[in-house]
Amino acid sequence: MDRMQAGANTFGPRIMSLADHLARWSEQPDALTVTYFSEAHKKVAADLGELLRSAGMEVRTDAIGNVIGVYKAAKPGAMTLLLGSHYDTVRDGGKYDGRLGILVPLALIEHLNRTKQKLPFNIELCCFSEEEGVRFPIGYLGSQAIAGKFDPKNLDATDDNGTPLRNVLEDAGVDLKSIASLARKKDDLIGYVELHIEQGPSLLNADVPVAVVTGIAGALRHRVTVEGEAGHAGTVAMQFRHDAGAAAAEMILATEKRCVGIPSLVGTVGQLLVPNGAMNVIPGRCEFSTDIRASTNEVRDAAVKDVIAAFYEIAKRRGVKVKAEEVLRMSAIPLSDYFQSRLKAAAERLGIKPLMLPSGAGHDAAMMSNLTQSAMMFVRCGNGGVSHSPREIITEEDADFAARVLFDFLMNLAEEYNA
Amino acid sequence: MDRMQAGANTFGPRIMSLADHLARWSEQPDALTVTYFSEAHKKVAADLGELLRSAGMEVRTDAIGNVIGVYKAAKPGAMTLLLGSHYDTVRDGGKYDGRLGILVPLALIEHLNRTKQKLPFNIELCCFSEEEGVRFPIGYLGSQAIAGKFDPKNLDATDDNGTPLRNVLEDAGVDLKSIASLARKKDDLIGYVELHIEQGPSLLNADVPVAVVTGIAGALRHRVTVEGEAGHAGTVAMQFRHDAGAAAAEMILATEKRCVGIPSLVGTVGQLLVPNGAMNVIPGRCEFSTDIRASTNEVRDAAVKDVIAAFYEIAKRRGVKVKAEEVLRMSAIPLSDYFQSRLKAAAERLGIKPLMLPSGAGHDAAMMSNLTQSAMMFVRCGNGGVSHSPREIITEEDADFAARVLFDFLMNLAEEYNA
Repeated sequence: MDRMQAGANTFGPRIMSLADHLARWSEQPDALTVTYFSEAHKKVAADLGELLRSAGMEVRTDAIGNVIGVYKAAKPGAMTLLLGSHYDTVRDGGKYDGRLGILVPLALIEHLNRTKQKLPFNIELCCFSEEEGVRFPIGYLGSQAIAGKFDPKNLDATDDNGTPLRNVLEDAGVDLKSIASLARKKDDLIGYVELHIEQGPSLLNADVPVAVVTGIAGALRHRVTVEGEAGHAGTVAMQFRHDAGAAAAEMILATEKRCVGIPSLVGTVGQLLVPNGAMNVIPGRCEFSTDIRASTNEVRDAAVKDVIAAFYEIAKRRGVKVKAEEVLRMSAIPLSDYFQSRLKAAAERLGIKPLMLPSGAGHDAAMMSNLTQSAMMFVRCGNGGVSHSPREIITEEDADFAARVLFDFLMNLAEEYNA
Repeated sequence: MDRMQAGANTFGPRIMSLADHLARWSEQPDALTVTYFSEAHKKVAADLGELLRSAGMEVRTDAIGNVIGVYKAAKPGAMTLLLGSHYDTVRDGGKYDGRLGILVPLALIEHLNRTKQKLPFNIELCCFSEEEGVRFPIGYLGSQAIAGKFDPKNLDATDDNGTPLRNVLEDAGVDLKSIASLARKKDDLIGYVELHIEQGPSLLNADVPVAVVTGIAGALRHRVTVEGEAGHAGTVAMQFRHDAGAAAAEMILATEKRCVGIPSLVGTVGQLLVPNGAMNVIPGRCEFSTDIRASTNEVRDAAVKDVIAAFYEIAKRRGVKVKAEEVLRMSAIPLSDYFQSRLKAAAERLGIKPLMLPSGAGHDAAMMSNLTQSAMMFVRCGNGGVSHSPREIITEEDADFAARVLFDFLMNLAEEYNA
């Protein structure tokens, strides 16, 4: 194996053209929308199967719609490294979210196959059928099944037409009982590595092409209700008011202030409303949401505790009532230190000091970490870091650089497994 | 004339019972709702006509539905003092809003009539048919007509059933052209004095039964739109955000801060919304309203200028855009100094130092000040100052005290006109 065989821009054009190739299929004429088991989804799966086969992999499409290709190791009985991401999209989404984590490894395997290189471990490229939770309000359907975390209750979930997931799978000829058997045995696994676009502006702002992901944040969400006293906007002097909207405003700023300046911590008030608000009425009620995340539960929970304490302090001082109801708690997921340091070293060998970034969003790696040690690499996102949008872009150079980092990582790992 | 004839609690029970008497009529079985030209409204008008006649007044019901009683002066050719307020209510309103300004003078006139006292001026008790703007989105229909400010365009306004005001009046047999002739000539007028419940907690908190109103605030309203950048609540670090909701929160607090601590100035953000907000999306847009009032245009406009400057400063600092569109500008209305000092002196002669309060809400006196010098007295409102609600209350003692202040004011004015 010769690392130098993979020079600059070996992979970039191929990755970009593969992304365009898959983006031919959509449920909507003027937008990229590929949701679970739609016609477009099946077309993408078929394309992937063909691409993986052409790259020298043994390919199977499983009961949940995952397309999985195995690029066999030099010798039988070898361990397996999982690579991959998802091929579904949000509605009116971008070409790279999910798919980049399939297409970068694919381009590398095409290269290995073309140059007749085998590694001392199998590469199993997992093209997960579903992660976005668009058609059914679940998400991670593909990686759930592989990680052995598929909940049979998922089968009762219905799409917007009221069709249960169960029917969709049965209509596709799936034996529902077989889903449980998709759970991957962990004994022969080295781990799982996923590339993904950043979906944020940190790399863009730092002028760095890739980041090693340090952990996947767990969100803790609350629905907050402030009850004050409605009153006439003209007749109640300022000092006598118990304005639910002004109290909420102070709470929003308290949330923001607590979350600023601490690495990986983010706090968002995404929903905000004075119900039946009138211009000449002091708000008697205000409702808002909080979503607080960090790469460890400890950092997040400390912030949530302080924020809610601040809410109560503000409410008490202003003579209003506040209620904060927890509506979602997802654990933060640490990622493999072993892989993190190897990905970092690979980038550094290629002359770039990668950012070490937490992931604020969930990814298949979060699910796969239930199965095996997992890691992620982020690739710089253009257009201010926008994602889940047709404006989502990456550059060919960054795609290429990410591929070379992953290639170097694989070669380095291969040396270890050869030793 | 003997002032001492009106001792403590001469008027209180009568005023309370008159308020209950009128509250028999409502459009709703379990709530007090009397909107313009409803059956209940006509019943109240008929009651008032009878009450005024029984109190020795000459009564007319005019084309716009005002019931007007004249308690004649001792001699012909005398000047006229207007007293009054409105007899319509909001939906599910209280018994005293508006009507107190009719019933207190009525109780005094009943007393004058019973004791055969005449004053050196006519008292014209104006029971205005409409002030609240509930059935038609206009308000002040009654006092507009008397003040000579009735706009013929009002006739095109429609109620919730689509019925134009024009049809309502024609069905009642009104000659529409006669409305213009309701405009009161000002030459023989001394002025207009209106009692009203405070509709706020200032008197309650200060433990004072009455206030002399220093002016009627003019509102200046803006519709404010903040445009930031939407983003994933997990993936955009705090320092890279342009959160429209957080920016709006800061603007709301800036509005509040600027308006606190300055007499008569109030600022309210009554409407507040992140459109299509999602818990996991950084707000890209936030909309809110401002309503800023003070008893002088100067105080109000200075506050509005500062508040909007603060909006732009906040927007610039946070990298968001803000647009503040003026949607309403009503001039502040100064009230008669002559009457203010006389009302204040009357209260002081009865042993109470009245508060001097601005009115944040509009009242018939605002309209009547177009015609003649006008004044208002506020009466303490119970239950925390709530109004426009069935919880609106006053005490018999306060009703009585307000009546005695007005009586003293009239007697004092009479001495001046007799001199």
